[in-house]
Amino acid sequence: DFMNALQEVRPAFGVSEEELEMCIQSGILKFSPHIDHILKEGHLFMEQVRTSAKTPLVSVLLHGPPCAGKTALAATIAMSSEFPFIKLLSPDSMVGFNEASKVAYISKVFMDSYKSPMSVIVVDNIERLLDWVPIGPRFSNSVLQTLMVLLRKQPPKGNRLLIIATTTERSVLAQMDLLLSFDYKIGVPNIMNTQELSNLLKGLQAFSDTDRHHILGELESVTLGDRINVGVKRVLNFVEAARQDTDIPGRFVEMMADAVAEGSVN
Amino acid sequence: DFMNALQEVRPAFGVSEEELEMCIQSGILKFSPHIDHILKEGHLFMEQVRTSAKTPLVSVLLHGPPCAGKTALAATIAMSSEFPFIKLLSPDSMVGFNEASKVAYISKVFMDSYKSPMSVIVVDNIERLLDWVPIGPRFSNSVLQTLMVLLRKQPPKGNRLLIIATTTERSVLAQMDLLLSFDYKIGVPNIMNTQELSNLLKGLQAFSDTDRHHILGELESVTLGDRINVGVKRVLNFVEAARQDTDIPGRFVEMMADAVAEGSVN
Amino acid sequence: DFMNALQEVRPAFGVSEEELEMCIQSGILKFSPHIDHILKEGHLFMEQVRTSAKTPLVSVLLHGPPCAGKTALAATIAMSSEFPFIKLLSPDSMVGFNEASKVAYISKVFMDSYKSPMSVIVVDNIERLLDWVPIGPRFSNSVLQTLMVLLRKQPPKGNRLLIIATTTERSVLAQMDLLLSFDYKIGVPNIMNTQELSNLLKGLQAFSDTDRHHILGELESVTLGDRINVGVKRVLNFVEAARQDTDIPGRFVEMMADAVAEGSVN
Amino acid sequence: DFMNALQEVRPAFGVSEEELEMCIQSGILKFSPHIDHILKEGHLFMEQVRTSAKTPLVSVLLHGPPCAGKTALAATIAMSSEFPFIKLLSPDSMVGFNEASKVAYISKVFMDSYKSPMSVIVVDNIERLLDWVPIGPRFSNSVLQTLMVLLRKQPPKGNRLLIIATTTERSVLAQMDLLLSFDYKIGVPNIMNTQELSNLLKGLQAFSDTDRHHILGELESVTLGDRINVGVKRVLNFVEAARQDTDIPGRFVEMMADAVAEGSVN
Amino acid sequence: DFMNALQEVRPAFGVSEEELEMCIQSGILKFSPHIDHILKEGHLFMEQVRTSAKTPLVSVLLHGPPCAGKTALAATIAMSSEFPFIKLLSPDSMVGFNEASKVAYISKVFMDSYKSPMSVIVVDNIERLLDWVPIGPRFSNSVLQTLMVLLRKQPPKGNRLLIIATTTERSVLAQMDLLLSFDYKIGVPNIMNTQELSNLLKGLQAFSDTDRHHILGELESVTLGDRINVGVKRVLNFVEAARQDTDIPGRFVEMMADAVAEGSVN
Amino acid sequence: DFMNALQEVRPAFGVSEEELEMCIQSGILKFSPHIDHILKEGHLFMEQVRTSAKTPLVSVLLHGPPCAGKTALAATIAMSSEFPFIKLLSPDSMVGFNEASKVAYISKVFMDSYKSPMSVIVVDNIERLLDWVPIGPRFSNSVLQTLMVLLRKQPPKGNRLLIIATTTERSVLAQMDLLLSFDYKIGVPNIMNTQELSNLLKGLQAFSDTDRHHILGELESVTLGDRINVGVKRVLNFVEAARQDTDIPGRFVEMMADAVAEGSVN
Ligand SMILES: Nc1ncnc2c1ncn2[C@@H]1O[C@H](COP(=O)(O)OP(=O)(O)OP(=O)(O)O)[C@@H](O)[C@H]1O
Ligand SMILES: Nc1ncnc2c1ncn2[C@@H]1O[C@H](COP(=O)(O)OP(=O)(O)OP(=O)(O)O)[C@@H](O)[C@H]1O
Ligand SMILES: Nc1ncnc2c1ncn2[C@@H]1O[C@H](COP(=O)(O)OP(=O)(O)OP(=O)(O)O)[C@@H](O)[C@H]1O
Ligand SMILES: Nc1ncnc2c1ncn2[C@@H]1O[C@H](COP(=O)(O)OP(=O)(O)OP(=O)(O)O)[C@@H](O)[C@H]1O
Ligand SMILES: Nc1ncnc2c1ncn2[C@@H]1O[C@H](COP(=O)(O)OP(=O)(O)OP(=O)(O)O)[C@@H](O)[C@H]1O
Ligand SMILES: Nc1ncnc2c1ncn2[C@@H]1O[C@H](COP(=O)(O)OP(=O)(O)OP(=O)(O)O)[C@@H](O)[C@H]1O
Ligand SMILES: [Mg+2]
Ligand SMILES: [Mg+2]
Ligand SMILES: [Mg+2]
Ligand SMILES: [Mg+2]
Ligand SMILES: [Mg+2]
Ligand SMILES: [Mg+2]
Repeated sequence: DFMNALQEVRPAFGVSEEELEMCIQSGILKFSPHIDHILKEGHLFMEQVRTSAKTPLVSVLLHGPPCAGKTALAATIAMSSEFPFIKLLSPDSMVGFNEASKVAYISKVFMDSYKSPMSVIVVDNIERLLDWVPIGPRFSNSVLQTLMVLLRKQPPKGNRLLIIATTTERSVLAQMDLLLSFDYKIGVPNIMNTQELSNLLKGLQAFSDTDRHHILGELESVTLGDRINVGVKRVLNFVEAARQDTDIPGRFVEMMADAVAEGSVN
Repeated sequence: DFMNALQEVRPAFGVSEEELEMCIQSGILKFSPHIDHILKEGHLFMEQVRTSAKTPLVSVLLHGPPCAGKTALAATIAMSSEFPFIKLLSPDSMVGFNEASKVAYISKVFMDSYKSPMSVIVVDNIERLLDWVPIGPRFSNSVLQTLMVLLRKQPPKGNRLLIIATTTERSVLAQMDLLLSFDYKIGVPNIMNTQELSNLLKGLQAFSDTDRHHILGELESVTLGDRINVGVKRVLNFVEAARQDTDIPGRFVEMMADAVAEGSVN
Repeated sequence: DFMNALQEVRPAFGVSEEELEMCIQSGILKFSPHIDHILKEGHLFMEQVRTSAKTPLVSVLLHGPPCAGKTALAATIAMSSEFPFIKLLSPDSMVGFNEASKVAYISKVFMDSYKSPMSVIVVDNIERLLDWVPIGPRFSNSVLQTLMVLLRKQPPKGNRLLIIATTTERSVLAQMDLLLSFDYKIGVPNIMNTQELSNLLKGLQAFSDTDRHHILGELESVTLGDRINVGVKRVLNFVEAARQDTDIPGRFVEMMADAVAEGSVN
Repeated sequence: DFMNALQEVRPAFGVSEEELEMCIQSGILKFSPHIDHILKEGHLFMEQVRTSAKTPLVSVLLHGPPCAGKTALAATIAMSSEFPFIKLLSPDSMVGFNEASKVAYISKVFMDSYKSPMSVIVVDNIERLLDWVPIGPRFSNSVLQTLMVLLRKQPPKGNRLLIIATTTERSVLAQMDLLLSFDYKIGVPNIMNTQELSNLLKGLQAFSDTDRHHILGELESVTLGDRINVGVKRVLNFVEAARQDTDIPGRFVEMMADAVAEGSVN
Repeated sequence: DFMNALQEVRPAFGVSEEELEMCIQSGILKFSPHIDHILKEGHLFMEQVRTSAKTPLVSVLLHGPPCAGKTALAATIAMSSEFPFIKLLSPDSMVGFNEASKVAYISKVFMDSYKSPMSVIVVDNIERLLDWVPIGPRFSNSVLQTLMVLLRKQPPKGNRLLIIATTTERSVLAQMDLLLSFDYKIGVPNIMNTQELSNLLKGLQAFSDTDRHHILGELESVTLGDRINVGVKRVLNFVEAARQDTDIPGRFVEMMADAVAEGSVN
Repeated sequence: DFMNALQEVRPAFGVSEEELEMCIQSGILKFSPHIDHILKEGHLFMEQVRTSAKTPLVSVLLHGPPCAGKTALAATIAMSSEFPFIKLLSPDSMVGFNEASKVAYISKVFMDSYKSPMSVIVVDNIERLLDWVPIGPRFSNSVLQTLMVLLRKQPPKGNRLLIIATTTERSVLAQMDLLLSFDYKIGVPNIMNTQELSNLLKGLQAFSDTDRHHILGELESVTLGDRINVGVKRVLNFVEAARQDTDIPGRFVEMMADAVAEGSVN
């Protein structure tokens, strides 16, 4: 019965809960209105799975540049569902696996999810699961085909599944026809301008207000504008590195300026 | 004898019956005259296999865009035959199989069918069975060659077989010379205009007449015309997702408009 | 001694006889003088093997479009030889074989033939034995090399062998240098015009004379001429399918017209 | 001692003698002065191996078009040496071998030859040993590398080895850098004109003088000249095939004319 | 507890200490201010790992031309950290390993590091770990994907890891998207001009002051300028080779001039 | 201790001594001053290894056209060192090895050398060790990577190693980045003109002075100049082959002229 089924899958849930929490180590700072929009969209699809018997399978892709916060947002949506089965499917757990083992592991996670009345699977960093490299290009076609089928395969009668995937390589997935396998796609943007950076630093409480104003001013004068286009994860890293220097704000501005320059080149 | 032979294959039939029914979860809504035409053609080829001793093997390909309803139509034709052996051959049952296992599984299904006096096999989603990916391009040549031979291999004397396959990649199959292995091809179109969409929504009883008129009007004004070109499966999905929103018709129009725009880009 | 040797190989003969007969299910209808010419050429090479000790190995390739009747003609020539060892080597018997098994199976058939004083081997559908696909292109080089050597390898002293092969891919075999391995090549044409179609339908006794005239007239008016270029096997199939319709001649004309159009596009 | 060493290798010799004789089934007909020139060159290199202690390894390549008589000439030179170890290394003995087995077999033959004070190895049809096919192109690199090393590897002190190889693909071997591994190269031409054809037919005693003159006249008038360019093996085959026809000279002229036309196209 | 954990990993440390010392056989000569800058940057990132709980994983790439001193500098930074776990991951320890063994070995080193509260891993000569070769190009995608994941995989809660990698192929790593996996990149330059060469020779005490001045003068006159662009490791090698000659300074100038010429061609 | 260590490796030395002597069967004839220059350079690097503790590993590449005498010169330098461990690493000893066995064998030889205080390894014919073929191109990347690492891997503390490699494919090695792994490169030229050929023939004492003058005169008149560009090994072979002819000088001139013509085409 339902209660026993829950029991059976609960332990798996517990494990991934910890893993998912590690993905949100620095919390979700609402540096722009996009963040709330993404979380709301995620909520809607989660509700569709919970309530609509006609669509027992819904899949969503979060795509955006490296370090934009995709994994943290996917983990946040997944954990908010409170479904009895919540699982993180990540390349981190498959280090050293060969293609066949990856396929087996991925299939196993989906088979496990089919036993629960309601499940979420976070498929993190799809291009890494696929062993994607632009030289060649090369990738694991057997992992790709497995994902393509699993993204469209209905759970057994009565059970339901939400799949949230993340990627930095939306156009690659399009070339692979993998994009067609997703019901919905949501973009996750970088920190785009000094206003958003200001919001983030405020949320972080990393600098005094004076220092923050000084930093933003310096940055704008060095980069000749307010455009940033750097991922939230990198900014958080720069804050920590700068702390080791004697001139903390100066070092932070230097690192930010380098990253802005890099980004505007690409 | 015949009765025993039937007995032997009956159980296999039962299993696939359930699988095939799952393919028609939302029924067949006759939103355009094409739907009836397709079913009638399917009926004719089924009759050819049932009655003509000179052509014990007939193969038909249903091709069309993603989500157009190909699998549901193939399943409907297959089930209507009431042949003693009816089998769904789908990538869903081969998750995690390597090439050799796929070839063995496919061959086994055909060998099984040869034991029944009259059989239908639905070969669903051929491009996925072939592990097709446009980058490279790559695909399983051993699965392809197996299908090429099985599509032309006569069942043993006295027995007969109808093969109904589906694909979204007609031109790829042509490049592979696989199209030549089919006796007949039938196109399955998307929902092409607001008139057909209206028929579908009426059949679904998802909205009140007022809402439906409102939706179609909104959609035509947003998309600047009556062209739709979206698969029936996606439309059914949008209806369910929109239901989770506070403004159901508004959300449905938004999703449809996005899908129409996407389709006209490609 | 000779009688015992015969005994030893006879059973193999029996098996292939049935298989070869299945290839001529609808007989050989002499819809054009080409048919007799092909059979006579086949007879000459068979006689060369039977009587000339200096050329113990002769190989012939029947090439032509799909469904032209290549296999039926090869089977007819082979069976007419009444050699003690007659064997059909066809992709149908190697479904699910990997490359190594194919090579082993093919070699085995030739080794078996070497034990008989006079043998015929029909190597049917060479491009399928080679797992040929134009995308790539890909094919089994180990099967190709095996055939190249076996097509030129002399049987042991005193024994003789006729090899009759069929293919739809003459130009591919040329690119592979496989054409060079054949001593002789014979073309097998499609049904080329309404006169030949008329001969065929007469031979089939599928329609009354009135219907036949009506059909040919309709067809010429729809296709704007007398050119047909459709394989005999397809025409026989259309006759059977049309029989399931209420308007048999109408349906037959429709199918033929489609096939004529298809052929003139390619 | 020497006598025992001879004993040890003698049996191997016996086996290949029969195989080599089968390569010269129709003898060597001296239809042009080239034939004697080739045999003399072969003799010189054989003498170099027999008498010069400073060059214990000599390798010669016979190259020419298909059916030109390369194998028969190589076999003739090899057998004339009367060395205690004479071996034919031919694709015919490696049907169904995989790459590793081929490499092992080839190496074994060379290792065996190293035990004899004087050896000849005929490496027949190198492109077939290499599994060469122009599509791709593909070939067995491990067989190629093995041959490259063995063609340059000195036999143990005191022992000597002559290697005679044949190929139709001189330019391919050049692209592979395999040509560099041969000390000497000798071309083997086709029958080039009606004069040489006349010499051959005379040698064969296949036609009366009247018939022969008639044939040559007919052929020149059909092909508009005296150019032939057809391999001796094909001509011998045509003679045998023509014999099955009622009009023997007519059929022979027809076949020759086709072959001449084919040759002038390529 | 902490002390035991240390005990457990200490032996591993000891082993690599010796290996790392071998990388700095000729010490670090400060021939230019860059050397100190590089060491200071390395120190900062090491401090970030030691003190910041928010960024438990930091990765740095040292890139520069062959022989520039990358390995020696990476080893110096690593050893200065005095972390309980310090490990050199180098192609030298994986000679003869196949891809799977390399992946297993690399993974093992990282798993071991995760057991220590603070660790440094020097990943030396990444392009060699990847079996990179520009012809093809070819490389081990499984090693690449393993590194990509490990460079981003967080150590378990509470533990921290600094990764210092070296490469001569920065642009190749960029094409592979591997550059994105590094938090920071530091360039390591060649000896760029005669001034820096002079500093190096002084530090080495290899020549008398007179000889040194003479050498630099000669070199400038031969190479028509003060540009050098040769790696420190090569210069040290030339000093040793020149010592075997009778004219030591002359030979050294000759070798340096050749190297300068080579460098200015590339 | 040292004496025991020597004992341990001595047997290995003995074996290769014989192999290395076989590489210099016809001695080293000093037909041009280049020969002495090459031997002296080799001596210098050998001395560097013997005396300089700072550079325990030195690698030299001898490159030049086929048959130029590369292997004989490498063997001569190696044997002159009288180091306790001298080993020839040649494709001849790896006939029939697969990639993994080659890698294992090569690694073993280096590991063995590390046990000796002073070692020389001759890595002969690198392109053949790499299974190089220009079609594709193809080569063994695992052998290449193994060599790349071993050419740079330091022997254990206190031990020293000189590596002398030979190749005809310098530019290929450059494309593979393998050239970067060598400390020094030395070119080995062909016999370039009739003056050098005269020196060689004199050294050989193969012809009387009159014959030699006659030969050189003839050759210059046939080739219209004094340019030769043929490898010493080929010339020595021609001398032996010509000896089998009745007109020895005439045959020698003919063979030389052909070789000169061939060389000037390439
Ligand atoms: N608004 C936000 N959105 C996402 N992450 C945030 C936000 N605010 C703070 N963070 C923190 O930023 C980090 C985002 O890192 P995350 O790994 O999710 O990025 P990512 O885009 O998945 O990176 P990658 O491209 O490497 O996969 C997390 O530690 C998270 O706690
Ligand atoms: N007229 C119709 N034709 C087909 N399907 C219909 C029709 N009306 C409603 N449906 C429903 O629409 C869905 C069609 O989905 P189906 O899987 O057959 O599409 P598909 O073209 O096979 O998609 P895919 O490209 O993903 O394979 C089914 O649930 C079916 O019940
Ligand atoms: N004149 C004819 N020549 C050949 N086949 C004929 C002729 N008349 C009738 N037939 C019938 O037509 C069919 C020809 O089919 P067959 O399989 O030989 O064609 P095919 O060219 O081998 O096809 P494929 O290209 O698929 O291999 C057979 O059933 C045969 O009995
Ligand atoms: N002058 C000749 N030279 C060579 N063969 C001759 C000559 N005269 C007659 N023959 C006969 O012609 C045949 C030549 O066939 P052979 O197999 O040697 O040709 P090939 O060039 O090796 O053919 P392939 O290209 O198929 O390997 C042999 O049967 C041989 O007895
Ligand atoms: N300032 C310096 N920086 C680095 N190395 C130095 C310096 N001064 C002297 N050295 C010595 O120079 C050598 C540098 O060699 P190292 O192996 O580090 O170069 P590399 O750039 O890693 O070479 P490769 O490209 O082959 O990997 C070491 O022996 C080191 O002791
Ligand atoms: N000056 C010389 N230099 C080198 N070899 C010489 C010289 N004089 C005579 N020889 C002889 O010439 C032969 C040179 O052959 P060797 O195998 O060394 O050439 P190689 O360049 O290595 O050929 P390959 O390109 O086939 O490897 C040896 O037998 C050697 O004894
Ligand atoms: Mg992520
Ligand atoms: Mg479908
Ligand atoms: Mg056929
Ligand atoms: Mg031959
Ligand atoms: Mg280094
Ligand atoms: Mg050599």
